[in-house]
Amino acid sequence: MTVTYSSKVANATFFGFHRLLLRWKGSIYKLLYREFVVFALLYSMLSLVYRWALADPQKRLFEKLSLYCDKYAEQIPVTFVLGFYVTLVVNHWWNKFMNMPWPDRLMVLISSRVHGQDEQGRLLRRTLMRYVNLISLLVFRSISTAVCKRFPTIDHVVEAGFMTPEERKVFENLNSPHFKSWIPAVWFTNLASKAREEGRIQDNVDLQAIVSELNRYRTGCTTLFLYDWVGIPLVYTQVVTLAVYTFFSACIIGRQFLDPTQEYPGHEVDLYVPIFTLLQFFFYSGWLKVAEQLINPFGEDDDDFESNWCIDRNLQVSMMAVDDMHMNLPPMTKDIYWN
Amino acid sequence: MTVTYSSKVANATFFGFHRLLLRWKGSIYKLLYREFVVFALLYSMLSLVYRWALADPQKRLFEKLSLYCDKYAEQIPVTFVLGFYVTLVVNHWWNKFMNMPWPDRLMVLISSRVHGQDEQGRLLRRTLMRYVNLISLLVFRSISTAVCKRFPTIDHVVEAGFMTPEERKVFENLNSPHFKSWIPAVWFTNLASKAREEGRIQDNVDLQAIVSELNRYRTGCTTLFLYDWVGIPLVYTQVVTLAVYTFFSACIIGRQFLDPTQEYPGHEVDLYVPIFTLLQFFFYSGWLKVAEQLINPFGEDDDDFESNWCIDRNLQVSMMAVDDMHMNLPPMTKDIYWN
Amino acid sequence: MTVTYSSKVANATFFGFHRLLLRWKGSIYKLLYREFVVFALLYSMLSLVYRWALADPQKRLFEKLSLYCDKYAEQIPVTFVLGFYVTLVVNHWWNKFMNMPWPDRLMVLISSRVHGQDEQGRLLRRTLMRYVNLISLLVFRSISTAVCKRFPTIDHVVEAGFMTPEERKVFENLNSPHFKSWIPAVWFTNLASKAREEGRIQDNVDLQAIVSELNRYRTGCTTLFLYDWVGIPLVYTQVVTLAVYTFFSACIIGRQFLDPTQEYPGHEVDLYVPIFTLLQFFFYSGWLKVAEQLINPFGEDDDDFESNWCIDRNLQVSMMAVDDMHMNLPPMTKDIYWN
Amino acid sequence: MTVTYSSKVANATFFGFHRLLLRWKGSIYKLLYREFVVFALLYSMLSLVYRWALADPQKRLFEKLSLYCDKYAEQIPVTFVLGFYVTLVVNHWWNKFMNMPWPDRLMVLISSRVHGQDEQGRLLRRTLMRYVNLISLLVFRSISTAVCKRFPTIDHVVEAGFMTPEERKVFENLNSPHFKSWIPAVWFTNLASKAREEGRIQDNVDLQAIVSELNRYRTGCTTLFLYDWVGIPLVYTQVVTLAVYTFFSACIIGRQFLDPTQEYPGHEVDLYVPIFTLLQFFFYSGWLKVAEQLINPFGEDDDDFESNWCIDRNLQVSMMAVDDMHMNLPPMTKDIYWN
Amino acid sequence: MTVTYSSKVANATFFGFHRLLLRWKGSIYKLLYREFVVFALLYSMLSLVYRWALADPQKRLFEKLSLYCDKYAEQIPVTFVLGFYVTLVVNHWWNKFMNMPWPDRLMVLISSRVHGQDEQGRLLRRTLMRYVNLISLLVFRSISTAVCKRFPTIDHVVEAGFMTPEERKVFENLNSPHFKSWIPAVWFTNLASKAREEGRIQDNVDLQAIVSELNRYRTGCTTLFLYDWVGIPLVYTQVVTLAVYTFFSACIIGRQFLDPTQEYPGHEVDLYVPIFTLLQFFFYSGWLKVAEQLINPFGEDDDDFESNWCIDRNLQVSMMAVDDMHMNLPPMTKDIYWN
Repeated sequence: MTVTYSSKVANATFFGFHRLLLRWKGSIYKLLYREFVVFALLYSMLSLVYRWALADPQKRLFEKLSLYCDKYAEQIPVTFVLGFYVTLVVNHWWNKFMNMPWPDRLMVLISSRVHGQDEQGRLLRRTLMRYVNLISLLVFRSISTAVCKRFPTIDHVVEAGFMTPEERKVFENLNSPHFKSWIPAVWFTNLASKAREEGRIQDNVDLQAIVSELNRYRTGCTTLFLYDWVGIPLVYTQVVTLAVYTFFSACIIGRQFLDPTQEYPGHEVDLYVPIFTLLQFFFYSGWLKVAEQLINPFGEDDDDFESNWCIDRNLQVSMMAVDDMHMNLPPMTKDIYWN
Repeated sequence: MTVTYSSKVANATFFGFHRLLLRWKGSIYKLLYREFVVFALLYSMLSLVYRWALADPQKRLFEKLSLYCDKYAEQIPVTFVLGFYVTLVVNHWWNKFMNMPWPDRLMVLISSRVHGQDEQGRLLRRTLMRYVNLISLLVFRSISTAVCKRFPTIDHVVEAGFMTPEERKVFENLNSPHFKSWIPAVWFTNLASKAREEGRIQDNVDLQAIVSELNRYRTGCTTLFLYDWVGIPLVYTQVVTLAVYTFFSACIIGRQFLDPTQEYPGHEVDLYVPIFTLLQFFFYSGWLKVAEQLINPFGEDDDDFESNWCIDRNLQVSMMAVDDMHMNLPPMTKDIYWN
Repeated sequence: MTVTYSSKVANATFFGFHRLLLRWKGSIYKLLYREFVVFALLYSMLSLVYRWALADPQKRLFEKLSLYCDKYAEQIPVTFVLGFYVTLVVNHWWNKFMNMPWPDRLMVLISSRVHGQDEQGRLLRRTLMRYVNLISLLVFRSISTAVCKRFPTIDHVVEAGFMTPEERKVFENLNSPHFKSWIPAVWFTNLASKAREEGRIQDNVDLQAIVSELNRYRTGCTTLFLYDWVGIPLVYTQVVTLAVYTFFSACIIGRQFLDPTQEYPGHEVDLYVPIFTLLQFFFYSGWLKVAEQLINPFGEDDDDFESNWCIDRNLQVSMMAVDDMHMNLPPMTKDIYWN
Repeated sequence: MTVTYSSKVANATFFGFHRLLLRWKGSIYKLLYREFVVFALLYSMLSLVYRWALADPQKRLFEKLSLYCDKYAEQIPVTFVLGFYVTLVVNHWWNKFMNMPWPDRLMVLISSRVHGQDEQGRLLRRTLMRYVNLISLLVFRSISTAVCKRFPTIDHVVEAGFMTPEERKVFENLNSPHFKSWIPAVWFTNLASKAREEGRIQDNVDLQAIVSELNRYRTGCTTLFLYDWVGIPLVYTQVVTLAVYTFFSACIIGRQFLDPTQEYPGHEVDLYVPIFTLLQFFFYSGWLKVAEQLINPFGEDDDDFESNWCIDRNLQVSMMAVDDMHMNLPPMTKDIYWN
Repeated sequence: MTVTYSSKVANATFFGFHRLLLRWKGSIYKLLYREFVVFALLYSMLSLVYRWALADPQKRLFEKLSLYCDKYAEQIPVTFVLGFYVTLVVNHWWNKFMNMPWPDRLMVLISSRVHGQDEQGRLLRRTLMRYVNLISLLVFRSISTAVCKRFPTIDHVVEAGFMTPEERKVFENLNSPHFKSWIPAVWFTNLASKAREEGRIQDNVDLQAIVSELNRYRTGCTTLFLYDWVGIPLVYTQVVTLAVYTFFSACIIGRQFLDPTQEYPGHEVDLYVPIFTLLQFFFYSGWLKVAEQLINPFGEDDDDFESNWCIDRNLQVSMMAVDDMHMNLPPMTKDIYWN
């Protein structure tokens, strides 16, 4: 479920964002606490070894190693690599969201321009909308782990009422090795074309408006599929992940508090808890987690898109719009500003 | 109310932007003065403790802690994180603004292409425009705290004349668990379709032009809704906020003026007032405040969009355009450049 | 007037950009020389005071202050803040330019598809184009100081022939508290609709093409208005301006040449003229001036858009296209590649 | 073949990205291992020479040279140059992917709106779709090395059934020195126009919808061609490559472990294996490899677009849609939510 | 001529980009060698003066000056300023390329939907396409130095067959002080309108499709013109150029090898050839040259767009498409996958 917090920050108030820091659901703490514990444990273990287990000459050697690690940890360009990478991931994620399929544009057209209040007319409008919903369901099944769990086979699609058993037979008989989400689109346009011949769609201007909306809808679905298929190159993700992991490996050694009596510059004080290193862990790992969470928003994270809800909403709303509400208007009365 | 200052900076003049620094309304000072006072107080208290309350060995310890904090404060990548984050927030904010609903495109079409100067024609055009305004009102109610305060219930919507009591009954009888802003859109297209059958809309080219504008309008409203629903991931906002807050916590300790007689490098002078740290507070907090103010522009900040004004303007203007101005043209006369 | 220099840099030649450094009009020198003089004066005065007016202990104190200022001046993130801010300003500025209204798309449609070579036909086409020009004039009056100076009242608009006195009466009688630039658009579509009924526009396909171009044109104008109304948040501009001004205040103290005999590191040489600080002044102030000049491109700067020229050009060209050139074609003859 | 990994990262889990680090196919290791070996060898050889082959005075000289190289290696702005450059390359790459030709929009139109279940009708629809596929094949041949290998001559195109021998004759007789991918588009529209005259396309609304989709399809193909033709300026690529190569040349000398007994600052410890330099090699070279892999995604890298698969899929799917599925609808039955 | 190298980098291979470093045409070396020679000469002369001409006290003074210059050279934010500026220039350059006029969309429409195989029909189609080509030619003449050289006067345009002498007379008699590239567009739509009246264009759906493509084409041309007219603000270009030139001026003094016996930190070794400074010259100047080359891509650089080729190709191809190929279809035969 998406984590919505915009109403909490409607006004810029006194320390306005601090309230956001205290949430658990979808928060950085929930995402990171396990990594944080591992990091803190490793750091502590090394710290204990340095303080208690090592002999003096070993300590001196470790101190040199620590200084060396610290020096190079600062040279790893984590900030930039992450900045550019996260910007890319966020753009992709947002484009995916903007291409989520909503049948609203199609349903207002079909509700008003596919005529006939008899059973045949109702059946026609409902079937058209069912095909529309079927297109997006087929695409969602291939990109969303959540939807895939709910509809693991075509049987489940038929059971849920998105496809009739007859359609299923035809669907499976069509012999193509490729992904078949385009089939209901062909059915849709052919059915619309048939409705045009029967006069249930008045003329070709209406028909083309409907077909062009269908194409727009299907292109949105295809775009989702393409974003899932290709995505951000693996190499880029690996480079960034390596950079962050290396940085923290270097930090575990390089950010140890060294014996202040040795008077290494920058090591005058021994605080035991490396507060700033832990905070840096939160910033950088948190930034990487932003990417990790957004790179596939069709999973089951707290902040992922609710594909299953979207599928249900679209079916319920579109059926109501083209069936119950077809030519079912409230009476027109004068509004209160009349004259 | 939006703070407009572009006319003040029409020309690039001598120290042109300095005038902007002296404004209060919508300014950084108004937004930040409370946080600034808190920060200054904390800094001063710590300063007083250091100078008067601590014994000499404690002072030496505090000085080491201060140097340590100062060193790491500089390593926190506030600038970059803020730069990338604010760029993202500003883009979202601007896209929201560009999707604010304006019925002007629809009203010129309805005014000119829905015929009939009789009462039925007027009623038809007014009802169509009312539905258009109703769509955006329903969406605004769910995203804008200001509009939500003004129209807390559907009663208020009916009272304000955006919905008739009959429509309300139908609206509430439609049984859907989902957000219902699409209902007036279905009414609109069905009513337009009815007008087409009665011949008040001449042919389907006109009708489709109207329906397609309606879809464009509704898509704008939906986009606003989607931006509010999903928004920038909470984790990103938390990472940035944590970075800024941590930086300033570190500054409160690390930017204290240490006793110059101890000859710490960079601490040769004691100015009492840490002028540059205070200015840094203004830059970074101000930058974060930019984000805080823009992340939800439908609140009641000085610089937020005036949703309520927009709702009123749209209703007033669109009613006038489709009713009073329908086929009410000034006489055509030759212009002054004729021949 | 816009400063066009692209023809000077058509080819990448030997030190190609250096020629651009020697221009005065629209140049950084013209924009900055006053600020530069002020900055140089302040620096010199402080330098004289330090060298001649201060006693030795005061000098030592000043030197410490100077070192302190210098250290923090480098910490102010001027480069980044400016980089992100100027990128934002440049994007807005370019979008404004891309939305400048050009009636060319409309005029080719009206010239060819609104029939009638009699006086009534000419009057019709001219009136339609006049309304189009009137829309943009009304918008320009509210956003451009240059246009506002030329047309301070509606009287001037009528005198210049953009509006007839009859239209003015109707315009002012329409009772709306809101900005009225939409009124000529309603007139336009109603007049086009009337022309359709009289058969001067052949069918609704033509009519809808014209109306849809009108909507496109009006949306461009509205976009200009919206960019002027909301613009870049004041807080952001203030943050950036503060950062730059603070940086230079710190520089005036921190970049003084200190007595080399005191052997402060980095102060081994006394050049009297702080050449690099002055150049930095040019970079950063110049970068800020870029923003200052572009944030409102409808003023009277050297590099601002020529709104008044644009208004005149549009009227002249569009009148010629729909009147003199209507169905006035050069004879068709075979071109030189025929067979 | 594209490397798809989005399903592996559907949920942000404990050290979620680490699994990606262990892949070989399409990974940074596969891309970089050869360069890495070369780099490591050169470093080791120099290290051995320094440790064993040089006399003491030569060692001192080498140490000075090494320190000098190290100092300047840090000044080379690899991070920024790479950040900006890779962002540009990724944008181009993604635009190419988004312009990959899919005939789905066209095929639903042709399947439903080009009538006739007789042989002539089938032939007409199949020929139209064949022309569509031919356009993209011709473009792919010129931009993709993989497709060029499969279809080195027009003979291969004819053999694969994308062109009939008759068409080939006409195609080759058309005398134009320029790239001929536009020819099938002209054939397509002329054939559609003929179908309109024969009544197989009902009216011009349908025809224009088809032609406009064809133009959209062809513009996508042309865009691919243009991206291949111009691409990112060679100079930019050279600047970035030079920066990276120089950086690593400097590192080979500058990052040698110098004799700790000489007490150069930062050289207190001799680890033999320059672990951080090797990791930096992975980051920066990996980042450059991202660019190298994406700059021409129509080659045969692991992560390149599968042009040949795309050509086959488009032909198979589009033929099935316009032939077998034309007016071949599953029977309409009531869905399970009926009433 | 554009430098195309994408086929050289189709696959990411062993040191893949190094081959690009060895090209001369369109390369950084060709663009920069003159500046490089000047820079190297100035550096050498100063070096010689310092080593041989100066007396010892002067040497000490020069060394202090050199250290001072070196310190400040590093503070000049060349990297960022260049990064942001070049990104802007590259975006503009690419948008220009994407708006290059191609008449292909128009020619398929005119070839198929403007009927008549008689001479009058041929003349009509050829004249329409000629107007289309004339629009872009007029625009290219004003923005491209290469095209301007080829067509310095309207005489040349007439001679090259883009305009007939009759058209020229009409063109020059139209009395307008403004740029006249819109005139052929008005001719085009009026001629198309006449063809519609004569029945050579079947109905208004076809006509509007043609007119709307014409408007799209013309808008592309206008966009090119606007990009040339306004472009990137001069001030921005000056700021960037100043930054780079200043940086290198500072380097000439600050990067001299100082006498190692004076033991200035970082000056332990005297290499005579400042290899890294020369490489930095290549990076930064190269980056600036990228901008210089792209800021006006209509010149005669190696990497500029081939406007003259584009004009010729468009004329040749479009004439062939609307004349020879009009209704001249290859015979339809069954493809090899039939059944």
